[in-house]
Amino acid sequence: MTIRALVFDVFGTLVDWRSGVAREAARLVGPLAPNLDAGAFADAWRDRYQPSMERVRSGERPFVDLDTLQAESLPGVLAGLGIEGVAADVRAELVQAWHRLDAWPEVPDALVRLRTRFFLAPVSNGHVRLMVDLARRNGLPFDAILGAGYSRDYKPKPALYRDAAAAFGLAPEEVLMVAAHSNDLAAAARHGLSTAHIARPHEHGPAGGETGPSVLVTHAASDLADLADRLGC
Amino acid sequence: MTIRALVFDVFGTLVDWRSGVAREAARLVGPLAPNLDAGAFADAWRDRYQPSMERVRSGERPFVDLDTLQAESLPGVLAGLGIEGVAADVRAELVQAWHRLDAWPEVPDALVRLRTRFFLAPVSNGHVRLMVDLARRNGLPFDAILGAGYSRDYKPKPALYRDAAAAFGLAPEEVLMVAAHSNDLAAAARHGLSTAHIARPHEHGPAGGETGPSVLVTHAASDLADLADRLGC
Repeated sequence: MTIRALVFDVFGTLVDWRSGVAREAARLVGPLAPNLDAGAFADAWRDRYQPSMERVRSGERPFVDLDTLQAESLPGVLAGLGIEGVAADVRAELVQAWHRLDAWPEVPDALVRLRTRFFLAPVSNGHVRLMVDLARRNGLPFDAILGAGYSRDYKPKPALYRDAAAAFGLAPEEVLMVAAHSNDLAAAARHGLSTAHIARPHEHGPAGGETGPSVLVTHAASDLADLADRLGC
Repeated sequence: MTIRALVFDVFGTLVDWRSGVAREAARLVGPLAPNLDAGAFADAWRDRYQPSMERVRSGERPFVDLDTLQAESLPGVLAGLGIEGVAADVRAELVQAWHRLDAWPEVPDALVRLRTRFFLAPVSNGHVRLMVDLARRNGLPFDAILGAGYSRDYKPKPALYRDAAAAFGLAPEEVLMVAAHSNDLAAAARHGLSTAHIARPHEHGPAGGETGPSVLVTHAASDLADLADRLGC
């Protein structure tokens, strides 16, 4: 069956969250913490990402968006790094760091190419406003915003993958889930979606990133331009 | 408070549903019904639009999208006009007529102007794929697709207006609901949204259309370009 739509993981796959969060942390927290390791700050915050979503996935609490979860986990990140005295308005501004991330360099042009043949939408754990801010900042030409906001849950819950196909009125295999994370692709494949892995060897800075899929995928690409080549765009 | 996002009714406000449906009916049904009044066909189909949604609004049935409702109401439209023998594949193609509507002439350029200052999204009773097809056909630069697909209900239920503000992380009054229908704007205002009426005197062909609002609105405009002027774009 032919691919008709591409849906994207965003944090790590389309945008470089670590550099962007570190940049904003250096700007906002640096003056208060002269010895700040901004990359470690970004890593520590990201480490709290999965556990914070788990309470929503499990049904323990109703859906709240990622801004809310990031705001809730921030005090623990600061305390864990021994940083004190960050005012509420600065903490709120730090949460906005996630709205100010830069795309990996090849992404905007590759999406423009892919858009000539496919519908494009994020299926991210970020909500509508977060995706819209990233799309506007980086010129990402999405047709729609799907994912956590649309499905009121977090990946890898089935709704996010199923809703993505249903929103476009397509069979699951007509939808290609594109991600730099094998676990996301494994979940998408369980719900019948086609899958494409994008290598992001620098996602975690010195700690690396996935250089290739650890699960069976439909396509494995070195970056998004390579995927556009492989799909004939 | 300042307006940050514009959300749009689509059928009648941004696109000319009557001419488009009539054009497709003439093409697909005309050969079977030489005396077809294609405009009356479009009107008869649109007349079934509100009652079909009411069963979802009332909770009598779970959410189904507008393609499903249009497909269900089509046999009654055909029978009511004395048209027989329309094959299933032609009926399915007729449902696609709603995906092939043309924007009112000033709309694409006006949206490009409005996009320079505001977030833009449809809040229509049409679902994601329907909105995406209309956006692609007409070059409508939406940031996100909200409305029935996002809220799994139909206007004027409160969720559609409330979810529109929440999706953008805005206060209701920061969101301007734009519609050619006073009842839609009255509902939006009840939930705190700002409102703009667009005159569409030809929406219903010879039966006219709203030339101005019958309720109090924030802005009343002669068309979308006039609204862009009034908003300083």
